[in-house]
Parts: sequence; structure tokens; C-alpha cells
Amino acid sequence: MTENLEMTSDNSGNCLAWAARDKSGFLSPYTFNRRAVGKDDVSLKITHCGVCYADVAFTREKFRKAIYPLVPGHEIVGIVEEVGSEVQRFKVGDHVGVGTYVNSCRDCDFCNDELEIHCSNGVVSTINGLDVDGTMTKGGYSSFIVVHKRYCYKIPEGYPLSLAAPLLCARITVYTPMIRHKMNQPGKSLGVIGLGGLGHLAVKFGKAFGLNVTVFSTSMSKKEEALDLLGVDNFVVSSDNEQMKSLEKSLDFIIDTASGDHPFDPYMSILKTAGTLVLVGAPSEIKLNPLNLRSGMKTLTGSATGGTKQTQEMLDFCGAHKIYPEVEVIPIQYANEALERLIKKDVKYRFVIDIENSLG
Amino acid sequence: MTENLEMTSDNSGNCLAWAARDKSGFLSPYTFNRRAVGKDDVSLKITHCGVCYADVAFTREKFRKAIYPLVPGHEIVGIVEEVGSEVQRFKVGDHVGVGTYVNSCRDCDFCNDELEIHCSNGVVSTINGLDVDGTMTKGGYSSFIVVHKRYCYKIPEGYPLSLAAPLLCARITVYTPMIRHKMNQPGKSLGVIGLGGLGHLAVKFGKAFGLNVTVFSTSMSKKEEALDLLGVDNFVVSSDNEQMKSLEKSLDFIIDTASGDHPFDPYMSILKTAGTLVLVGAPSEIKLNPLNLRSGMKTLTGSATGGTKQTQEMLDFCGAHKIYPEVEVIPIQYANEALERLIKKDVKYRFVIDIENSLG
Repeated sequence: MTENLEMTSDNSGNCLAWAARDKSGFLSPYTFNRRAVGKDDVSLKITHCGVCYADVAFTREKFRKAIYPLVPGHEIVGIVEEVGSEVQRFKVGDHVGVGTYVNSCRDCDFCNDELEIHCSNGVVSTINGLDVDGTMTKGGYSSFIVVHKRYCYKIPEGYPLSLAAPLLCARITVYTPMIRHKMNQPGKSLGVIGLGGLGHLAVKFGKAFGLNVTVFSTSMSKKEEALDLLGVDNFVVSSDNEQMKSLEKSLDFIIDTASGDHPFDPYMSILKTAGTLVLVGAPSEIKLNPLNLRSGMKTLTGSATGGTKQTQEMLDFCGAHKIYPEVEVIPIQYANEALERLIKKDVKYRFVIDIENSLG
Repeated sequence: MTENLEMTSDNSGNCLAWAARDKSGFLSPYTFNRRAVGKDDVSLKITHCGVCYADVAFTREKFRKAIYPLVPGHEIVGIVEEVGSEVQRFKVGDHVGVGTYVNSCRDCDFCNDELEIHCSNGVVSTINGLDVDGTMTKGGYSSFIVVHKRYCYKIPEGYPLSLAAPLLCARITVYTPMIRHKMNQPGKSLGVIGLGGLGHLAVKFGKAFGLNVTVFSTSMSKKEEALDLLGVDNFVVSSDNEQMKSLEKSLDFIIDTASGDHPFDPYMSILKTAGTLVLVGAPSEIKLNPLNLRSGMKTLTGSATGGTKQTQEMLDFCGAHKIYPEVEVIPIQYANEALERLIKKDVKYRFVIDIENSLG
């Protein structure tokens, strides 16, 4: 009976999408209703949506309880189709983006500081989030989305929409801590652990900020491209203990984008005195020797995307400096395979779904 | 034969001391030679020396290889007896102190910034350190010490010498990170894990800085004193899960002075968004959930004493604000028992050896 009801709902909505139905995370076509455009809302026709590791985690219930059907996708770009009466910042036809959250209280200290991601009353995730109206939010593997103007960003003039998608999660996730921890001082040295969606963007920012960039990777396979295409200054295979040892106390900062488990002590040793390692990846546990914090007053910190003000600032920076992610554009029909490949780290460097031309 | 030689050396030096002879750490009388006063040196008659957990660790070879006989003690205060020809800052009769290090290169960026503790060429520890002249340094459980003027501090006028001793290690260890991480903003909230030598000083600074101070302790035994004597605002027994849970996201900073192992996740959860936990204690390992760093961009960092400039600044601050540690003054003959009691955390809050009246 439940199944029948679901089948009905699948064919009765205004929005086309692909959704997971259970913990297998397998995606298939699904139809549901988006809300009508309110006075402060923007409705955008989605042209592209990036594929983030969060899509794996949400659909397979790795982060928190999933309410199915679950529509993933939180690197959303598209074209404004309708705006509410109170919306001045956007007009029909504008190129815009939506990131990892679509609502917050807009009343707490963090919201007032435009750090909505840290909203005291809880930010509403773009995927599988409980929205203020009691509905579960549905992400960007869908034909359009209606969102409060505050959580909508301008894509810089001339910036290709397919390339803009990864900016909305991957890029702001590395940009925010880099700015917060002052990793934008030319001449300083940056280590990047992992060269996936987040890592390759950390490299691009590092080079744009004038840093000397060292990449730590588990395999040699990306070395040539890292040096030639991304302009990395030094490529280190993390299992090479001798090379790791030779780098002791040599880096000002490290940004750790690895999603798998790995030791932390070798990297803390590679930091200079007063150096900082920022974790933005998703290992299952952190374990380290306290001496690696105490002697040399080193810092281990974390970060998860950023506020609306900084997101727009990052987008503008990418537009002004022509910083483009490396992407592989795929149709929605390839989404399941893309998620499997993402798990195997078999992607250079971000999948972006061409929603406009493949969904519907 | 070796034993005989040692017996000889025990009776032929200009400096009386108590030293450990092996890994048992057991201390007994010992005599050795201090160097003659050089042009940049200060010689001080030691009146008091604080008993730090480092004294246990050094004598029992827990930190690094110990060269015996090993004289512990790096919270040294006394009275200047002689100064070299190039010493202007000190004169005979001055009350002075020596802390955890007695030499550094005085040429690297850190030394130039008066952050000698982080000297690129390696700071020379006051205890069991290899000094530039090739000798092993010997600490403050001794009748006098000769030290380069740079590593000697003025004790503020009128500050009791017995109370000044713990300032030279315990206090600067908590003061440095509190200043570095801006834990001196009135009205903010500070958690202090552990209420021993370091912890009770963190509380005193916290109160002097106008912070709301919560102490986390493993037992209720120190509660009354913490509230009445130290003016702590909130006393929490860390095993009380319910109380710990009720504090979620409530503190701006935590300073962790615990020397034993304990979980970190509960404390990270108690930090507010963007909060910082500074480790100055000595657990054997740190283990935590990465989510506790990423969501809420929290920071875990460490610190170990401070530079000469900040040490003098801290001493002056303690003098001006009449901040005094709580100490138990003991004779040198009680040193072995004091170290045993320190291991059992049976001290309120710092032992200070009355060198002047008991050694000799």
C-alpha cells in the first residue's frame, strides 16, 4: 500500500527529480511538488548540479537519519525563472546558485553575522533537511528549486554554469578556512592532503593566493596532472616515509581534504611552529600524539562550508581571477555510476550533472 | 669503580643539589660544579624551587633520554649574587627567577621575536639539556645557578619568593595560550580541566581577566575550595554525563591541564561555535570525532610555556594584580615524597621547595 501511494506521488508533482528510496542509495526518477514562490523567494530552473561526497552519505544514511525518497545535490546552479515581490537582488534570467543550506533562523548572532551555517537554531540543509514549514528539503538532482533569496548567490558574469556548480559546496568548504586561518598570504607554504573535488580546489586557491603548494596523495597516479595542469610545486606520496620525514617543520598550513582514515602525526610534524592543519574531509576518527600540539603550539581545526556573505565573496573572487574547477559533465542517467566512482576516488576532479539536458 | 668515581664527584663541586641517579627517579644529595660567571651571566643563590610534573618525567626518563645524575627543578627563584661585566638589567641583591630553559641560539626568527621556547636551533632545557658548552644542564634543586641574563626574569617588588616559583613554569604555561587565543576578554566563559598546579593558576588568571570560570574535575574533593578559595563560578564532576551534556555549546574556551588520559569529545561538544580547547597537560593520546572539529569550526591546539618577553610580562601582571599561587612549602628532604604525592594528584596546588633553609 505504501508502495502504491509512493508510486502515485511519483507521478503527481511539479518537479522532476532523481531520488534514493532506501539505504542502498540507488537513485531513480521521482516527481514531487516544490512550494509556490513566496514574496522573498527565488525560483530557479536548475541547469547543473555537482556531485559531492555528501550525496553518497545522505542517500546511504551515513550522516544522519534519512527520510526517503531523498533527493541529493547541494551544488546547484541555474537560471532565475520567477522572483517574489520582495526580491530586488535577483531578476528573471539571472545566473544563480544554491549551496548546502536553504534556511536558517535569520535572527541569531551567527545569522546576523552572515554565518548562517552556524545558526544557533540549526541551519536547514539543502538535502534531507527539516524546513520551517515541516517539509523535508529536496536537493538539486531536480528540475527546479524554490529558495529564500538569502540563500541564493549570483554567479559572476560569463562564468560557465557547468563549472560554477562545484563552487557552491566544494569550493566554499576550502575557501572559508583558508581565509579564516589567513592562508592567503603570498609566499607562505600550503600542504593539501587528497587531490579530489575539494583538494584540487584548495590547490587552485593556493596558487591564486601566491602560495607554494605541496600535495600529499596516496598514489602517484595524479602526479603528472597535478604538476602540469594544476601547477602544484611539490607532489608527495604520503606512504613515502623518507620524503615525509624530509619535510619536517616545513609548511605553514595544511588543508586536509581526505575522506578516508589516515595518520595525523606525520602531518603535524610537517607543520612549522604555530602551524595549522584544517580538516575539511571526513575520516572516521582523529588520533594524535599530544606532543605534536604542545611543542610548537600547533593547531588542529575544522570547517564546514561557509556563510552567505563569504560564499558570494568566494564566487566573485573565482570570477575575477578566472579560477575554474576541473569537472566531468555527465547526464543524470549516469548518477548512480558517478557515485560509485566517487567512492573509489575515480574522478578528475568533480562530476557535474547536466540537469538541463538530461532530466525530463 | 664507576660508583667510586661518582662518590668522588659528589664531594668535589661548588654547588649542592639533589639528583636522581637512575630511572627510579629517587633523589639524593649530590655535588657538582657550576660554571664561572661569564660577562653576560647572572649567578643567583636559589631560595625556592617549585615542583613540577616535569620533575617526575625527567628523573624517570619519561620525556626523553636522561643523563644521570640528573638534577630536576625548573621553577627557580632566588637572589642575585654576582653579575657579569655586560649585565645591566640585574644587580646583586635583585630577586630573580629562571624558568624552563636557559639557552637558545639568539639568532633565529623565533629568538628575534623573543619566542625563544620555539628556537629553530632548539631551546636548551633547564633540566637535562645539552648546553652550548657540551655540558648537561642541571636544575633548581640546587644551591645556586649561573644563567645567561636573557633567561633570567625580575620578580616584581614585594612578591614573596616562595610564591613566585610556580610562576616560572606552571603559570607561564597557562598564561601564554590564554593570551595567544584571546582568553582575556571580560565576560567570556572559560573551562578549566583539572585543578592541579596549572589548573588552579588558569582559574586565577581567568578570574583576573573577568571570565566566567567552570572547573572540570574528576572528583568532588576540591569543590568547596574551588568555589570559596578560588572563586570558581561552576564546578563540574566530569564523570557526571548529565551535567556535561547540559553544558553543550556553552563555553568560549577550555584550557586542558589534565595530565591523565580522558575523552576529548565531551569537551569539544561543550565549546561554543568557533571555540578553542588548548592542551597544556600531558595525556598519552588524543582521540576525537572529526565532526566535533568540522561542525562549529572548533579548534584544538596546544602550548608549552612561553618566550622571555611574555614570561616577564606575566610576572609583572601577577605582581600588579597580586595574583598568588597556592603553595605548600616543603624542605628538600621531602622531595621524593612530594613527587610521589604529585603523581597521585595529592597537592594543593603546588609544592615549593625551601632550598635556602633546607639544602646545605
